[in-house]
Amino acid sequence: MQTIEIIGLIAAMLTTGAFVPQVYKVFKSKSTTDISLTMYTVLFIGLMLWLLYGIQKESFPIILANAITGLLVAAVIILKLKYK
Amino acid sequence: MQTIEIIGLIAAMLTTGAFVPQVYKVFKSKSTTDISLTMYTVLFIGLMLWLLYGIQKESFPIILANAITGLLVAAVIILKLKYK
Repeated sequence: MQTIEIIGLIAAMLTTGAFVPQVYKVFKSKSTTDISLTMYTVLFIGLMLWLLYGIQKESFPIILANAITGLLVAAVIILKLKYK
Repeated sequence: MQTIEIIGLIAAMLTTGAFVPQVYKVFKSKSTTDISLTMYTVLFIGLMLWLLYGIQKESFPIILANAITGLLVAAVIILKLKYK
């Protein structure tokens, strides 16, 4: 694997994994006042379009990264609606 | 332009633009308690690696999307550190 492909893979893991501590924080604190529902809603729609793009392009990394990020973002939305 | 490329373009605009309402919300409320600094820090590092990936691959959409998202995420980090 080329160095640049490894960088891309690490980039994908970080931009997906980044949402884990936010989900954990909200899950623990049950407080979501400062979190923008608009941000997470627009982000979710965008991620689902990326997923569609990945499926069409038959790109497994794009499909995987956006599916997982989509689940984490959906979790934030659900917690936001639950604890608003 | 193919339909799938237009979908990719809309996806990029949404996943980048999503951060605007979060920056605006924090800027207005000056409150960042519920926002995970870990999330935004990891996300920023990931976005900078995507930027590097885009530069290496000479992909203008990847460069542009990640540069703008990087600026917005950096703004959230600065506001988080300012109003903690």
